[in-house]
Amino acid sequence: MEIKQDKIKVIGFDADDTLWVNETYFRETEHEFAKLLSGYETENKIDQELFMMEIKNLEFYGYGIKGFVLSMIESAIDLSNGKVSNATISKILNLGKEMLAKPVELIDDVELVLSSLVDDYRLILLTKGDLLDQERKMEKSGLSKYFHHIEVLSDKKEENYKNLLEHLEIEVDEFLMVGNSLKSDVLPLINIGAQAIHIPFHTTWVHEEVSNQQAGGSYCSAEGIKEILPLLKKVN
Amino acid sequence: MEIKQDKIKVIGFDADDTLWVNETYFRETEHEFAKLLSGYETENKIDQELFMMEIKNLEFYGYGIKGFVLSMIESAIDLSNGKVSNATISKILNLGKEMLAKPVELIDDVELVLSSLVDDYRLILLTKGDLLDQERKMEKSGLSKYFHHIEVLSDKKEENYKNLLEHLEIEVDEFLMVGNSLKSDVLPLINIGAQAIHIPFHTTWVHEEVSNQQAGGSYCSAEGIKEILPLLKKVN
Repeated sequence: MEIKQDKIKVIGFDADDTLWVNETYFRETEHEFAKLLSGYETENKIDQELFMMEIKNLEFYGYGIKGFVLSMIESAIDLSNGKVSNATISKILNLGKEMLAKPVELIDDVELVLSSLVDDYRLILLTKGDLLDQERKMEKSGLSKYFHHIEVLSDKKEENYKNLLEHLEIEVDEFLMVGNSLKSDVLPLINIGAQAIHIPFHTTWVHEEVSNQQAGGSYCSAEGIKEILPLLKKVN
Repeated sequence: MEIKQDKIKVIGFDADDTLWVNETYFRETEHEFAKLLSGYETENKIDQELFMMEIKNLEFYGYGIKGFVLSMIESAIDLSNGKVSNATISKILNLGKEMLAKPVELIDDVELVLSSLVDDYRLILLTKGDLLDQERKMEKSGLSKYFHHIEVLSDKKEENYKNLLEHLEIEVDEFLMVGNSLKSDVLPLINIGAQAIHIPFHTTWVHEEVSNQQAGGSYCSAEGIKEILPLLKKVN
């Protein structure tokens, strides 16, 4: 499938793991969490239980670090059969605060790509998670100058995108989304008639993974963000 | 001070404790929390410690229920000198989930007021807190049909309002804000040259309270939301 570049007026970028590193920090924290509970279970079992807890709690907590910390605490109590120490729970709270205070690490070539596109397209940033956390990352990243609009969504389903495009008065066929998650950044867009480019990140949260069958729609995939530039070059 | 009604084109409403009950649930949960820890300290001391913990953690967690739950857990560990049981921590987690699942209880006359104003003004909803939680409450409330725009802000300071009005292309002197918090819904607006009506709610979080001196600006105060109608009646 090719990108119909001449139609596109607005490009949406996902933020976490598209513009800056994010999932890596969750994986590191999960590893620390498993070490804290290594007296009770294997790392593999702990990972599985935590993941199931996160999914179970998604309806309450949504996406983001605070919900993740609450799920770690609940899992720690479950995995230890109610024996985990206060000291360990304090350490879990601190793991969360460390994540929230992490500096923003831009992914290679992000600034080059945004600065190359900003004159020809309206760029918008579409992310999900904690509002305060995402605003903080945007500010630390120094990237806000490239974006006409920044929107933190509670979820990234077809309905969320439809409402947003309507609200911003963007026609679906003028819109292209760029992101690392097939499930959140690519497939819902294809399904509503917009375009999308997938740029895989080396780490994907299991919940964001989709099977090959689900990913049957046609979309473009790029190995790195710089590769989207030739696809989007305006012929003047 | 009188409202200059003829200038106003857009009215912003705060949500929590202006359109629906919110702070009451925090007070109830704090009371439950104090009961859980009554073996360690007096309710008064527990309230104070929790409040200080919330303020200390505000830079990490921002506003909303999830940060509140994390602060309750941290306070429970502190207040018990690291002796609080896993069972009590589980109960704290459940208090949070109960808050997140609470039905929305509209404040008297809210629907009457919104439906009376919707034809003459552009109504927008400006709230802060957890994005997912606020979206859920808006949906449960059945009020979204009255609003042209809904924005969840990470904070409600002058800067946040300025950016928002600019982004929505609203002139400050065409804007009136209605809300229960002097600190968040009234004073910042007066300071940037917009108008505001204060409708006190019977319960205010200590952090939202301002001294008489800080509240020196001129603003309108109404005892109930219905009282704003005569102030805003369009003369046709």
